[in-house]
Amino acid sequence: MSGFVHDNRGNIVDLEQHVDLEADVHFMRMEWALDKFAIPRDKLPEELEKITSPFSMRWSLFFSEDRPRVAVFASRESHCLYDLLSRHEAGELRMEIPLIISNHQALETAAQRFGIPYHYFPIAGENKAAQEAAEIALLREHHVDTIILARYMQILSEDFVREFPDRIINIHHSFLPAFPGAKPYHSAYRRGVKIIGATSHYVTSDLDEGPIIAQDVVSVSHRDSVEDFIRRGKDLEKVVLARAVWHHVERTILVYENKTVVFH
Amino acid sequence: MSGFVHDNRGNIVDLEQHVDLEADVHFMRMEWALDKFAIPRDKLPEELEKITSPFSMRWSLFFSEDRPRVAVFASRESHCLYDLLSRHEAGELRMEIPLIISNHQALETAAQRFGIPYHYFPIAGENKAAQEAAEIALLREHHVDTIILARYMQILSEDFVREFPDRIINIHHSFLPAFPGAKPYHSAYRRGVKIIGATSHYVTSDLDEGPIIAQDVVSVSHRDSVEDFIRRGKDLEKVVLARAVWHHVERTILVYENKTVVFH
Amino acid sequence: MSGFVHDNRGNIVDLEQHVDLEADVHFMRMEWALDKFAIPRDKLPEELEKITSPFSMRWSLFFSEDRPRVAVFASRESHCLYDLLSRHEAGELRMEIPLIISNHQALETAAQRFGIPYHYFPIAGENKAAQEAAEIALLREHHVDTIILARYMQILSEDFVREFPDRIINIHHSFLPAFPGAKPYHSAYRRGVKIIGATSHYVTSDLDEGPIIAQDVVSVSHRDSVEDFIRRGKDLEKVVLARAVWHHVERTILVYENKTVVFH
Amino acid sequence: MSGFVHDNRGNIVDLEQHVDLEADVHFMRMEWALDKFAIPRDKLPEELEKITSPFSMRWSLFFSEDRPRVAVFASRESHCLYDLLSRHEAGELRMEIPLIISNHQALETAAQRFGIPYHYFPIAGENKAAQEAAEIALLREHHVDTIILARYMQILSEDFVREFPDRIINIHHSFLPAFPGAKPYHSAYRRGVKIIGATSHYVTSDLDEGPIIAQDVVSVSHRDSVEDFIRRGKDLEKVVLARAVWHHVERTILVYENKTVVFH
Repeated sequence: MSGFVHDNRGNIVDLEQHVDLEADVHFMRMEWALDKFAIPRDKLPEELEKITSPFSMRWSLFFSEDRPRVAVFASRESHCLYDLLSRHEAGELRMEIPLIISNHQALETAAQRFGIPYHYFPIAGENKAAQEAAEIALLREHHVDTIILARYMQILSEDFVREFPDRIINIHHSFLPAFPGAKPYHSAYRRGVKIIGATSHYVTSDLDEGPIIAQDVVSVSHRDSVEDFIRRGKDLEKVVLARAVWHHVERTILVYENKTVVFH
Repeated sequence: MSGFVHDNRGNIVDLEQHVDLEADVHFMRMEWALDKFAIPRDKLPEELEKITSPFSMRWSLFFSEDRPRVAVFASRESHCLYDLLSRHEAGELRMEIPLIISNHQALETAAQRFGIPYHYFPIAGENKAAQEAAEIALLREHHVDTIILARYMQILSEDFVREFPDRIINIHHSFLPAFPGAKPYHSAYRRGVKIIGATSHYVTSDLDEGPIIAQDVVSVSHRDSVEDFIRRGKDLEKVVLARAVWHHVERTILVYENKTVVFH
Repeated sequence: MSGFVHDNRGNIVDLEQHVDLEADVHFMRMEWALDKFAIPRDKLPEELEKITSPFSMRWSLFFSEDRPRVAVFASRESHCLYDLLSRHEAGELRMEIPLIISNHQALETAAQRFGIPYHYFPIAGENKAAQEAAEIALLREHHVDTIILARYMQILSEDFVREFPDRIINIHHSFLPAFPGAKPYHSAYRRGVKIIGATSHYVTSDLDEGPIIAQDVVSVSHRDSVEDFIRRGKDLEKVVLARAVWHHVERTILVYENKTVVFH
Repeated sequence: MSGFVHDNRGNIVDLEQHVDLEADVHFMRMEWALDKFAIPRDKLPEELEKITSPFSMRWSLFFSEDRPRVAVFASRESHCLYDLLSRHEAGELRMEIPLIISNHQALETAAQRFGIPYHYFPIAGENKAAQEAAEIALLREHHVDTIILARYMQILSEDFVREFPDRIINIHHSFLPAFPGAKPYHSAYRRGVKIIGATSHYVTSDLDEGPIIAQDVVSVSHRDSVEDFIRRGKDLEKVVLARAVWHHVERTILVYENKTVVFH
């Protein structure tokens, strides 16, 4: 691959590799400058196919000026949403946020402050399928390719998830696989753990079972109440989610067998 | 309590308290010097009973020169055993180790090097009850009050555990409640976690469900093989176990509702 | 002390103590409910003085509904400011923010979004003393008792600092005492450290030498550029600063000999 | 490089690269199996020189069955020494330890237990140069290529250090560059830090200024005395040192401009 780039006058600016010896798979991420590159953009897929097909390689091609279009889903908690919006505004996350979707009206002010359209889709039992269909239509209309669940407290249906394979990023408020499901801080408190955590992962049809992207933890003690767990956990949640989103939009994550290779 | 100590010319050298508002229980640990203390040692329990009974307080009394007598149980992995023996020799752990018990012969050399009797109790299916009975007899003979399972790869029977309530300390090689049971590093590797951990806890009749004393974690990545998990996890195991043992022998742990209050 | 509270029908809801045996000083923080308290608020200082003066105790009294009035100082980086404003709005930080002061205009939008007056005090060499005098006048006018330097990139004069002893909280972007002064991430990168950190401390007249309130770190490697250090460091900065502010406004910090006792 | 290996029927089992864009240097570590390799061992250096010289590449070649010969230097503290010896015995560290050198007699028992010759070189002011000369002679005699300073409390002379460039590994008991020199835990305690650390680095003629290999930290609080710092710091010291030694003997460290590239 590096020979191919060099031969066509591409200047490699980043290169990372990983070999999973057990699975016998080679992973590679290469980033190169196109200034003097001999192959025009629109011919690149074709040329890549030519050189990779003999080796049964799978590849994806992204141009760094094509920013991922991201929809943020949130419910009532504001910490992850504000965190994403302020990072985005500061230029840390190279993506577009054409819209925010919520099953509550609580965070509309936050969206307005950052000038992002807010779409309210209340979910009440029987209307879920219809609401999801409407959401999907809206997401398509906005050419959204990635969804961030910023403490979105609704379980997406299998059909919905299937529309965005490896492109829905969730933050779960425990160090998975410990405490999946609802109210993990309460469960952690009852169990008397000395460490709490947060996990960001791609969403699959198995709840809280998707490929883990990032995790972090913080120490707690008997002096911490469940409210302390929640307060301190929020700091983990927003930082871990943002880290996962950063890697996703920088295209450094490769998903394989329900696991992730997260390059630098 | 502090009034009682002061009034009898005891000098408080350490005092920690904790109030569990939810459970409405008050915890306290007080350490005082007996040099000029007005009440003789053998009368202390009686006096303590007098002043505490009106408040339905439960108390334990330890004299710091009475070192806990500890039996270490190990199997084939040496890292926790050597770690405990070298800390003990250096004076970090104020306890006696009258004996080491193992279901293998592998670590006899380690025991000999530190001059500690090694008792080999092979466990093979049908002999377990008999072997445990022999172990308990031996432990009683040596006045053992605390057992450390230093990567002892045998599950103790309920009967055995009942003999040493809140006095058997285990190290489990995962951040519980994630990955209980056998081969947690292999499970963690398969799940693709980004953090691995170790948990020290008191043993109860529910496997890996006892009160947690200490936990710690270390970051891993896709570059880590399961062998790397095991190697890096060993550092956690020995440090987390030693930390739990230190708190236990310093008498700073209070167990309550399957949880621990671990004072400084 | 607890006797005093009990005798006057106060209900103690939180109590923490610390004894610095080396310095022979006892620290205590007690929080009690006033519902049925026998002593009226305005008589409390007098009564406290009576019972504490015989023991040469020093005390401070705060009522939890009296929220600290805090001025946030910022420059051009928005991450700490947005983090504080969104936590404040969510009710995590029980304080008032009557104003934001800046030596730049860059963050005026952020302030407007959260409806907080923004005061622009450009500092250019010779005008510093005059500008600081104007700032102090403004702070007095707003009855500000605490200042948060949320990545404020101006050194405050000794005179200014003297006005707010132990009441100016700074975030420094290194694990002090390593890398004090300007551009710590660049220095850390040059030194080749494997860990970077952030430190929140009270400001004294000695730059970056004040009592440390909170610190945290994150691992880095040879793969991290100085830009990565800065990006990842920002997460530390905002979380560490917020943690320090939380403890300050909850009145859990006691300053002593240029160190802090930070109760839970 | 990978072409060279493949063309000669070598099977690459590990490959890691790093590009320092700022310094414009490319680093690579490649490990391959020699079973069917076309070039005999003794010809390899010559062939490597041929293909690398046109690109002004610098290279080192190691065969994995050639284990580094390591001398451990220790003084009075046993924790790092026991830790290294027990890891070595368990097969974690693939190296030979032909001898232990000490300026004290305290740890002779430890050496004997693990069957390693112990050489006592007391250092007293004026005899240092002579003792170091004798040590160097002994090290040469044993073909020692790497020295581990396992809490060796003597500063090596510049002449000594020059004999083993990038081959003396020290553990310093602080997170450098904070608290270089003597008694770092006491300094950390006085400064009131909330985190303490340990740093493993290659020794250069500038004390505590050599290339950092590994660092780790642990949280402390006002409840920790300087003795607690020391006790808890020891756990960091032994783990951080062992981690650095592991990377060194696995040949995964590249030193460059007083910094290290530490491959997995």
